Amino acid sequence: MDVGFIGLGQMGKAIAANLVRAGHHVRVWNRSPASAQALVELGAQRVPDPAAALHAEVLLSMLADDAAHREVLLDERLFARANRGLIYVNLATVSVAFTRELAQAARQHGVDYVAAPVFGRPEVAAAAKLNIVAAGDPTTLRRLEPLFAAIAQRVWPVGTEPERANAVKLAGNFMIASALETMGEAAALAQAHGVAAGDFLNILNSTLFASPVYQTYGRLIAEKHYEPAGFTLTLGLKDVRLALEAADAARVPMPFAGVLRDHFLEALATGRPERDWSALAELALRHAGLE
Amino acid sequence: MDVGFIGLGQMGKAIAANLVRAGHHVRVWNRSPASAQALVELGAQRVPDPAAALHAEVLLSMLADDAAHREVLLDERLFARANRGLIYVNLATVSVAFTRELAQAARQHGVDYVAAPVFGRPEVAAAAKLNIVAAGDPTTLRRLEPLFAAIAQRVWPVGTEPERANAVKLAGNFMIASALETMGEAAALAQAHGVAAGDFLNILNSTLFASPVYQTYGRLIAEKHYEPAGFTLTLGLKDVRLALEAADAARVPMPFAGVLRDHFLEALATGRPERDWSALAELALRHAGLE
Amino acid sequence: MDVGFIGLGQMGKAIAANLVRAGHHVRVWNRSPASAQALVELGAQRVPDPAAALHAEVLLSMLADDAAHREVLLDERLFARANRGLIYVNLATVSVAFTRELAQAARQHGVDYVAAPVFGRPEVAAAAKLNIVAAGDPTTLRRLEPLFAAIAQRVWPVGTEPERANAVKLAGNFMIASALETMGEAAALAQAHGVAAGDFLNILNSTLFASPVYQTYGRLIAEKHYEPAGFTLTLGLKDVRLALEAADAARVPMPFAGVLRDHFLEALATGRPERDWSALAELALRHAGLE
Amino acid sequence: MDVGFIGLGQMGKAIAANLVRAGHHVRVWNRSPASAQALVELGAQRVPDPAAALHAEVLLSMLADDAAHREVLLDERLFARANRGLIYVNLATVSVAFTRELAQAARQHGVDYVAAPVFGRPEVAAAAKLNIVAAGDPTTLRRLEPLFAAIAQRVWPVGTEPERANAVKLAGNFMIASALETMGEAAALAQAHGVAAGDFLNILNSTLFASPVYQTYGRLIAEKHYEPAGFTLTLGLKDVRLALEAADAARVPMPFAGVLRDHFLEALATGRPERDWSALAELALRHAGLE
Repeated sequence: MDVGFIGLGQMGKAIAANLVRAGHHVRVWNRSPASAQALVELGAQRVPDPAAALHAEVLLSMLADDAAHREVLLDERLFARANRGLIYVNLATVSVAFTRELAQAARQHGVDYVAAPVFGRPEVAAAAKLNIVAAGDPTTLRRLEPLFAAIAQRVWPVGTEPERANAVKLAGNFMIASALETMGEAAALAQAHGVAAGDFLNILNSTLFASPVYQTYGRLIAEKHYEPAGFTLTLGLKDVRLALEAADAARVPMPFAGVLRDHFLEALATGRPERDWSALAELALRHAGLE
Repeated sequence: MDVGFIGLGQMGKAIAANLVRAGHHVRVWNRSPASAQALVELGAQRVPDPAAALHAEVLLSMLADDAAHREVLLDERLFARANRGLIYVNLATVSVAFTRELAQAARQHGVDYVAAPVFGRPEVAAAAKLNIVAAGDPTTLRRLEPLFAAIAQRVWPVGTEPERANAVKLAGNFMIASALETMGEAAALAQAHGVAAGDFLNILNSTLFASPVYQTYGRLIAEKHYEPAGFTLTLGLKDVRLALEAADAARVPMPFAGVLRDHFLEALATGRPERDWSALAELALRHAGLE
Repeated sequence: MDVGFIGLGQMGKAIAANLVRAGHHVRVWNRSPASAQALVELGAQRVPDPAAALHAEVLLSMLADDAAHREVLLDERLFARANRGLIYVNLATVSVAFTRELAQAARQHGVDYVAAPVFGRPEVAAAAKLNIVAAGDPTTLRRLEPLFAAIAQRVWPVGTEPERANAVKLAGNFMIASALETMGEAAALAQAHGVAAGDFLNILNSTLFASPVYQTYGRLIAEKHYEPAGFTLTLGLKDVRLALEAADAARVPMPFAGVLRDHFLEALATGRPERDWSALAELALRHAGLE
Repeated sequence: MDVGFIGLGQMGKAIAANLVRAGHHVRVWNRSPASAQALVELGAQRVPDPAAALHAEVLLSMLADDAAHREVLLDERLFARANRGLIYVNLATVSVAFTRELAQAARQHGVDYVAAPVFGRPEVAAAAKLNIVAAGDPTTLRRLEPLFAAIAQRVWPVGTEPERANAVKLAGNFMIASALETMGEAAALAQAHGVAAGDFLNILNSTLFASPVYQTYGRLIAEKHYEPAGFTLTLGLKDVRLALEAADAARVPMPFAGVLRDHFLEALATGRPERDWSALAELALRHAGLE
C-alpha cells in the first residue's frame, strides 16, 4: 500500500522499516531528518514536511505525546489538506481526552481515524511482534490488515470509539508499571531475608509469573541493567499520569497507580531520568536501606 | 519411604494422596478424622494421634497457620518423642519469626528441619505440579528427592536457613495478591471507558502477561467466579499480614502490601470472607461505582 | 476605594458585602445577575458586563476554577481594555500553572497582578475573618491594605511571584483534606472498639488538636452534618487535583494526597457530590463495615 | 495516698515527681535504679523490687511496651502477691489485645484494673498538664481523682472496658503521626514552589491549625530540631504498629496508617532511630530531592 509515516523515534523507525520490508511504499517524515537515513537506504521515501506524508492511502504516526501530536497535526491543520478517504492510524499512547479531540478533528475533514496503540518494546517492534489494540470502523480495520500483518503478531479490536483503545493501552501500561513495583517490593523483602533479588525473581518468573513482562523486566531488575533504556522513567511517569487522568475523568480510584506516580516522581527527582522505567524497582531497595 | 503426614485440608489431602500413589508408606493424621477416609481407601494408614505419625523417616505437615503448628507440634512436645534423625518437612506458609522458633525446637531434639512451602492451588497439588521452595541441609534435601518428585514439578533450594524459604513464599504470595489488585484496578479503568473487564484481561493475559497466575486469576475475575474458593480472602489477609510482619522485622517498606492489607480488610468487613481471594478485584469496581 | 468585583458565589458575595460595608464603591458583576441583588440593596453598583467592572482602581475576583477565569478574563481579553495601573487581585484558588499564565497576561497590558487566595469558609468570610495569602509587589500590597482590612483578619505576604501564594493555598487545602481523612480513620478505629466517633473526636479536638480546622470539621463529622455544604466534595477533589498537579510539576511525591484523591473519587462515584467535603470521613466507616 | 510507681523513664519520672510534690507517699522502682535518685531526693521511697511497690492502695506504672509489662508484671506473677483491693493504673500505651490479657490477669487476683494512657510529651508531664484517657470502674475512677489531679489537666473517661482507653490512645497517636506526615508533604510542596517550610508552617499553624500538636511539631520540623527526642522514631513506629494491629483485629482499613508505617520503617532503615518522631517529615523533602 501507499503509506505515510510520521515520527521516527526508536519505535517508529522499527515499525516503518517493517512496512518497507513488506513491500509497502512508505513516505517518511521526522522533525530531525537524520533519523530517516536508514529507512531511505531500506527503500523508504523521505518527504520534506508532514503534509507530504499525507499523499497516501494511509497515514501512520508514532509521536511522543499529546503536545507533539498537537504541534505536528493540529497546529499545522494537516487534516484540512488530506485527501478525503485518508485513513489515519495513530500508533502512539496519547491521553483519552486528546484522542477524542484528535479523532474529531480528523473526521471533520473526512479523515478516517483509527486508534491503534501498540504493546511492545523496540526489540519487539523490530521483530514485527507487536500487539496492536485497535479501535475504529470494522471495514477500515480490515483494509489495514496488510499493514498490521507487517508489524504485529496480533491485532485486538475493541470497538469503534477510539478512546477505548487508548484506555486499554493506558490500563495495560499501568499493569506493567505495577508489575515493576511489585517485583521491587517482593525482591527487597526476599533480599532482606538472605535471598538475592535475582534468585528470588528467577523462581517466581520461571513458574507462576512466567510471562514476557515479568521475565523481561525481572531480568533487567536482577541485573540492574537500566541503560540503555527501552522505555525511560520519564515516559513511565507520563503514562501513569495519563492513566490517572483517564481514571479521574471516569471517577475510578486507583491506589496502586497513586503509589506508582509517587515513586516515578521520586525516581526522577533523585536519580537519572533517562534510565529504563524498570529502575523503579530500585526504590524499594533504597527505602529499605538495602542499596 | 516411610512417612508421616499431618494436616489433611484441601492441600494436604491432595499431596498425601500423591505420596501414597507413588508407593510410599504414609501414616496420616488430622484433627477431624473424616478427612483421612479417602486416603485410607487409597492405601494410607490412619494413626490415632500426631505422635504416631512421627514413627517414620520423614514427617510432613500442612497445617493452617502459626497457631495450629504451635498447638499440634509444640504444645504436645512432639519433637521430644521423635526418633533421632527424623526429618521434618514443613510444607505450610508460616511466619518468618515462627519458622525460626519451630526449627530451633526441632533441632533441639535432633530433628532435621526442612522448610518447604509450596506454590500451587489445590488443583495444582492434585496434579503433582507444585513448586517447592526448600531450605535445609543439602544432604537432607537430596534424601527427600523421591518424596518431592511425587508431589512437585520442581524444587527450588534457597539455602539452609529455613526462614529464607518462608520469606520467598510470603514474597511470592504478595506478588500474587498484587497481581489481583492490579488486574482489578486496570479492569475498572478499562470498563469505565467501555471495554468489558473480561475482554480487557483477555488481551493482556493472552500476551504480555501470559502466565499461570494472570491467566488463572484473570479468568476468575472476568467470570466473577469466586466460589468455591481455592484460597479464601481470609487466608489472603493472613499471608499479606505475614509478609508485612516479615517486612517490618527487616525494615522493608512495602506500600503495595499496605494497600492490599486495607483492601483485604475491607473485603472481609463488607462481604463474605469464604470467597476466593481473587474477589479482591471486586473492590476496584465498587469504589468506582461500577458494581 | 473604587473597586470592581467579579464572581458572586457564596464566598464572593460575603466578601463583596464587607467591602461595601467598609465604605468602598463596589461595581459587581456575576454571570447569573440574581446573585447581585442583595449587594445592590447594600449599596453596590451592578454593572452589565465584566469589562465595566474594570473601570476602577482595583479589580477583585472570586471565580470557580481555571476554566471560569479563562472564559471571563482571557477569552474576553479584558486586560487589554483595562486602565494602565489597574491592580487585579485574584482571591480564588487556581492552579499554579494557570496563575503564571494569568499573571503574564495581566502584566502584558500593564495590569498589576496580585495573587491573594483566602483561607476560610463562607461564614468566616461573612465575619471578615479570612486569612489572605498574598503574593505581589510590596508597594501594591500596601495600597491594598484598606481593602484587605475590610475582609480579612490577617494578610500573609509570601513574596512577589504569584504562584507562591497559590502553592501555599493548595498545600493548606491539602492539609485540611488530610485532617478530614485522619479524623475519619481514627474515629473508625475508636468506634470499632466501642468509643463513639463523636466522643473520640471531642477528646482529641478539645486538647491536642484544638484548632479551627479540627474543631469545625470534627463537629460536622461527629454530627454527620454534611448538608448544606460550606465546600463541596467536588471542590475538594478539584483542590487535591491542583495540589497533585503542582506537586507533579515540581516532582514532589505526596502519598497522602494520592489517598485523598482516590477517596474523593470514590465519594463522588458512589454518593452525592454536593455534600460538604468533610463527608470524606464517611468512607473510613464504610470501608470498615461500620456504616 | 499510698502509691507504688513502676517505670521511671522520661515520662514516668516526671509523673512520679508530681505525685510526690502533691504530698502522696510514693514507692518507686525501676530496672536501672539510678533513675530513682532524683525522686528519692524529692521524697519518694525507693523499693528493691517491683513486688514491694504493690504494698500500696494504688499501683501506677509507665513501662515501655507490651514485652516490658509481661516481663515485670506477668512473668513475676506480681498480681498474685497483691493485696485484695489494690487498684492498678496502667499509664502506658499498650496494645489493645494485651490490655485485655493484662486486665484479666489483674482481676483474677482481685486487682482493680484501670487503663489510663496519657497524652503529652515529657515537658507536658513535668508541667502536670497531661490528658488522661481513663477506662475502668466509675467508683474507682473517683477514688483516683487526687492522683490524677496531681499529674493531669483533665481526665477523659471512656467507659469501663480497658481496651477502649487504649484504642483512643492509639487512634490519637495515629492522628499525631498523621499530622507529621501531612506537614512534611505540604511543606515540601510549598518549598518546591519557593516558600520556605518554616514560613509555610507558620502561616497554617498560626491560623487554621493553631493547636498544641501542630504548633509544637511544626516548630520542630521548621527548625529541623530532632534531637534530643521527646518521643523517638522507634516509638513512633511501635505505636503505628499497635494502631494497625488494633485496626486489623476489628477489620478497619487505615490507608494513612499504612503510609505512616512505611515511612517510619524507611526513616529507621536509612537514618538514626533515636531522633524525634517529627523527623518523619524529612522524608517528604528527601523523596522530592529537596534535602
